[in-house]
Amino acid sequence: MLQRQTILSVSTSDTGFVDITRHLARFVADSGVKTGLLTALLRHTSAGLVIQENADPDVLADLADRLEAMAPRDPSLYRHRSEGSDDMPAHVRAMLTNVQLSIPVMKGRLALGKWQAVYVAEHRARGSDRQVALHLTGE
Amino acid sequence: MLQRQTILSVSTSDTGFVDITRHLARFVADSGVKTGLLTALLRHTSAGLVIQENADPDVLADLADRLEAMAPRDPSLYRHRSEGSDDMPAHVRAMLTNVQLSIPVMKGRLALGKWQAVYVAEHRARGSDRQVALHLTGE
Amino acid sequence: MLQRQTILSVSTSDTGFVDITRHLARFVADSGVKTGLLTALLRHTSAGLVIQENADPDVLADLADRLEAMAPRDPSLYRHRSEGSDDMPAHVRAMLTNVQLSIPVMKGRLALGKWQAVYVAEHRARGSDRQVALHLTGE
Repeated sequence: MLQRQTILSVSTSDTGFVDITRHLARFVADSGVKTGLLTALLRHTSAGLVIQENADPDVLADLADRLEAMAPRDPSLYRHRSEGSDDMPAHVRAMLTNVQLSIPVMKGRLALGKWQAVYVAEHRARGSDRQVALHLTGE
Repeated sequence: MLQRQTILSVSTSDTGFVDITRHLARFVADSGVKTGLLTALLRHTSAGLVIQENADPDVLADLADRLEAMAPRDPSLYRHRSEGSDDMPAHVRAMLTNVQLSIPVMKGRLALGKWQAVYVAEHRARGSDRQVALHLTGE
Repeated sequence: MLQRQTILSVSTSDTGFVDITRHLARFVADSGVKTGLLTALLRHTSAGLVIQENADPDVLADLADRLEAMAPRDPSLYRHRSEGSDDMPAHVRAMLTNVQLSIPVMKGRLALGKWQAVYVAEHRARGSDRQVALHLTGE
């Protein structure tokens, strides 16, 4: 059993979803691990990690709409306003989408379904540099 | 340290929760692992994996109601309608419930609490065949 | 590769967030593991585990407000009322916040971001004794 770790840097441009699947797949391929487990942790509290559909971009736009409906950018709803009107809703959305996930590696590949991709969900209004800690164990 | 993997097939009949705890427990028991970690990944984007109460079926019905409230089957809310009026709400519910989880194995058993079960949450209106990738590591 | 496990007991006093980061960090430090993976499972269905901001307490108060908005303590919304008006909303909140998470360990420390802490989110109105199963693997 070996372990591999790295920090992946992901640039976001504004609210929305950035597909990082290929970066995760490359990390697994470079390790030589055939059977194992990949874990990713987004090291922030105003963005998330989401496994969602990789086909129709409308799905991602609809997901963003629903996050806005569940955690609106309406300052009257929140005490915490010091970092901008998009900050506290971003924390709520990070709670709903979570910031970490684990994916089995089978036959050298992520065991994702055909329609699944892994996204960094940027919940702030502006883009940012986001770090994702990756841990791979296997053989 | 050994690793065991399999793909579990789960048939759902319609929107709701299918208890897969016994299948996970059997996979652990068959492996002989006493101390370890089980990870499950649902390989779909319109269903989820949920750890919830195993006692009163009303709890599951209420959870389904709240998912409907948070992600209604109302086509006017969504761009993505090509796969039916239940599809996009199912993606939103999958985001809220997540599609993967990890459970420690202690003394040969899943370390779930007394009232916890693991469910596949079918978010589509019709049933389907759902795949759950399982990864177990331990000794 | 070694494995370490324990059950962490956490006392909550009422609805809200209890920071358990230092307990997780001590468990990792005591193990001597430098490179590995920590997994935590809350063994209950009416509380959750959340990674969120560790700085402004207003963030936690706002998160609690939004959970109340998404899963209100309004008995007219639920079938399951036998355990009190705060019980079924707590199950819904547990579904939204989840009950398990995994965090890579890098250079002997949890790979959390600077602003991240790990909280037990008590979703019931009264406090309780909550158990968190911890699993650490690494070397």
